[in-house]
Amino acid sequence: MNTEQFKEFGYAAVNYIANYVDTMRTRSVLPDVEPGYLYDKIPDEIPETGEDWRELLKDFDEIIMPGITHWQSPRFHAFFPTGSSYPAIIGEMFSAALGIVGIHWAASPACTELEVKMMNWLGKFMNLPEELLNSSKGPGGGVIQNSASESTFLCLLAAKAKSIRRIKKLHPELNEDEISSRLIAYSSDQANSSVEKAGILGSIKMKLLKTDHDGNLNREVFLEAIKNDYNAGFFPCYMVATLGTTGICTSDPFDIIGSICKTYNMWLHIDAAYAGAALILPEYKYFLKGVEYADSFNFNPHKWLLVNFDCSALWVKDANDLANALEVSRIYLKDNCEKENTQLPEYRNWQISLGRRFRALKLWFTLRSYGKKGLQEHIRNHINLANLFHTLVENDSRFETVCPARMGLVCFRLKGDNKYTEQLHEKLMSRRNIYMIAATLNGKFILRFVVCSRLSIEADIRYAWQEIVSQADLVLSNNPCLLNGHSTNTN
Amino acid sequence: MNTEQFKEFGYAAVNYIANYVDTMRTRSVLPDVEPGYLYDKIPDEIPETGEDWRELLKDFDEIIMPGITHWQSPRFHAFFPTGSSYPAIIGEMFSAALGIVGIHWAASPACTELEVKMMNWLGKFMNLPEELLNSSKGPGGGVIQNSASESTFLCLLAAKAKSIRRIKKLHPELNEDEISSRLIAYSSDQANSSVEKAGILGSIKMKLLKTDHDGNLNREVFLEAIKNDYNAGFFPCYMVATLGTTGICTSDPFDIIGSICKTYNMWLHIDAAYAGAALILPEYKYFLKGVEYADSFNFNPHKWLLVNFDCSALWVKDANDLANALEVSRIYLKDNCEKENTQLPEYRNWQISLGRRFRALKLWFTLRSYGKKGLQEHIRNHINLANLFHTLVENDSRFETVCPARMGLVCFRLKGDNKYTEQLHEKLMSRRNIYMIAATLNGKFILRFVVCSRLSIEADIRYAWQEIVSQADLVLSNNPCLLNGHSTNTN
Repeated sequence: MNTEQFKEFGYAAVNYIANYVDTMRTRSVLPDVEPGYLYDKIPDEIPETGEDWRELLKDFDEIIMPGITHWQSPRFHAFFPTGSSYPAIIGEMFSAALGIVGIHWAASPACTELEVKMMNWLGKFMNLPEELLNSSKGPGGGVIQNSASESTFLCLLAAKAKSIRRIKKLHPELNEDEISSRLIAYSSDQANSSVEKAGILGSIKMKLLKTDHDGNLNREVFLEAIKNDYNAGFFPCYMVATLGTTGICTSDPFDIIGSICKTYNMWLHIDAAYAGAALILPEYKYFLKGVEYADSFNFNPHKWLLVNFDCSALWVKDANDLANALEVSRIYLKDNCEKENTQLPEYRNWQISLGRRFRALKLWFTLRSYGKKGLQEHIRNHINLANLFHTLVENDSRFETVCPARMGLVCFRLKGDNKYTEQLHEKLMSRRNIYMIAATLNGKFILRFVVCSRLSIEADIRYAWQEIVSQADLVLSNNPCLLNGHSTNTN
Repeated sequence: MNTEQFKEFGYAAVNYIANYVDTMRTRSVLPDVEPGYLYDKIPDEIPETGEDWRELLKDFDEIIMPGITHWQSPRFHAFFPTGSSYPAIIGEMFSAALGIVGIHWAASPACTELEVKMMNWLGKFMNLPEELLNSSKGPGGGVIQNSASESTFLCLLAAKAKSIRRIKKLHPELNEDEISSRLIAYSSDQANSSVEKAGILGSIKMKLLKTDHDGNLNREVFLEAIKNDYNAGFFPCYMVATLGTTGICTSDPFDIIGSICKTYNMWLHIDAAYAGAALILPEYKYFLKGVEYADSFNFNPHKWLLVNFDCSALWVKDANDLANALEVSRIYLKDNCEKENTQLPEYRNWQISLGRRFRALKLWFTLRSYGKKGLQEHIRNHINLANLFHTLVENDSRFETVCPARMGLVCFRLKGDNKYTEQLHEKLMSRRNIYMIAATLNGKFILRFVVCSRLSIEADIRYAWQEIVSQADLVLSNNPCLLNGHSTNTN
């Protein structure tokens, strides 16, 4: 592909994307394909000679697009949002074109320095404690990781290494392997699966603490677990608290948990993957209560802040804890910066891989393109739309919400036996007009409705509700027993 | 940014990139900036209101570009290549625009299925053993990871989990922690730093085995290490062999190492991050000798195969080994595919993170755009240019090569004391016309000249050599003692 052909392809791709976004609502949010649909549509081997870009675009349209679940559609209400926006797309394109790998400062100074600046921008906008920022005088700082999974895992490793050093001093009779095998970490049972996975990856026992009926972790439960484990010979070392759990978007009490962690010398990591973005709103500042206890804090701009995956923002109170746990030196990695510092960090020592993409670029483009006001409007819009949906559910007596609307999430169900909600979900999924996923809470089968798309407006919420009601009508008419046992919509 | 503005920005970005590529040689490959150059050029906070795209592009040009090391330049001869090509750039842009996250098949069937197909395409083209491919009937398969670091680490975890299960059967008296603390892994001392890091990440002792003067790992050294460790109570479990080491691009003898691994029930991982791409050439097929022993094989299309970072191709002989080591189940992760199989893999169980980008797209565009012939020409061109450079070095008696030209790499130095080569390197780096990095081999300070850019032609090699010679002249004229002790260029 020569430069002229690239320009033709590039313009065509830009037009294709623009049209995709503008016609998003005309598409079925879930694809209508069976497993294996793609395999026969593509030859078994690479073509002998190169193909024209028009063939690529044609096949993208005819083979790939029918197999896409439209995460950016206003009909997408599953999981949590995954960001995409026009400035982020261009940022990603520039990053691919530069083709740099930020293995150290000299590998492209702009890559490291823009990331430092962007992490400060975000941290300040979210009112995070100053000591977490690169701009502080201390050893704190921020870095872009691939995902919240990776962030949780890396901080677990840092906590592990730090704890081993600390415990070794207290118990010189124990060797490192013995200490390591007796370390234990915690989170609530509402934490994302990636927290459990972090324990597996890092060879640390991870205990999921039972939450109450509202999904909250209580002080006593946490304290009791620590004490029991201590008595059983374990060393508690790491706690992952969540701001906005995956299931029902609850949050742990950071002040209570943090104070316990401090008492027991445990690393507190806050996983705010989705909900952290709401900290850019002054009205959500109260969520920061207790954040000063955090040794690390993570949220994903690639979830709710309009930047495409991957862009996971992690701040640590002492970056040396990461570097101490991860650093490996080789002569080919030396550059002009002789001393690690958080104003000029050697980010390779803060992460799993040696290489890294220039991800700060799409963040810079997006934050500037929207500005503080635009970003706040985006988050507020989703919260308002979720509240609207919550009201619609509450006004239909056949339904019940199972918790308050939190951020962009509403959890609800048909009253009565789980099977009605299960049937409702099945019907909705088979129609593919909207996409929601299910969860369980206290034995109840629930549906999670999340406002996800940056394009979402009130009409989309009413569309979704209408779709849900239409199928609920069918479920309930097929289950007359329900009509006797429970009140029905009287409107 | 509305759709019209996106189109304007998009066209402008495409033009900018096209011009960047076409004018690559006019830029100094290394930037002329001091640490911290960027911080004062960018405000300390996000702007209150959104900015026009023209401001973004202007600042990209004026603030970012002066801080870029041009990895795609034909003057870049450092590290190993990092891919970028026109079709890959467009693929990355589409991926960002779709904004999907492939957490399971239903999250976008095309994302999983195209990846399966692309991994088969690559594996066949490289003549990898059939049992490594998804298209085989067995449990083998391929997956795209972020990096070779991650691949090495994941396979270490798989080997660890598998070994613990095996050893537990043999030694039921040992608990898992005891077994785990006695596991040990190996590679040669020429392996990439990411191999050592994998041991740190996965809490496994990693022993770097001493290589001979040519950087080769000998059978006896490996066998002796295993036997000594067994006698000391360790359980050898994992071996990382390299195809194309970072320093001087040597390769381990897979047949010898593999047969030992088989005897001792050890997992053999082959790290072919850079040099693996050469397996698409029939004349390099001999490198596959012994690959049938590999439990896993990894190479980075984002290095030498024209795809931008990240795109690291990993194949495993039994994908269940990965899933067994990593799987965590949650109801919100269930989808239509009830059974894990390598034709329809649940890739989230093959990797660290839950989410994943649609990286197969850029691979598909790139492989089709070039075709087999185009890809082979690209690799052969680099090898031929490296051979040309090797000849230029050999024909100047002041210089010596320290090993044969291997793939796109030539390692060389000024004869005599290390300080001459060190001075030469310093001079070249301060001039910033070409970029090479240094390494040490057997106490000798050497320069690594790598052909990296897809744009590289003979004139670029001659340019680089002329630049080197011009600075060598200065170094040697400043060190008259050298003239007495060693022969000089008599041409």
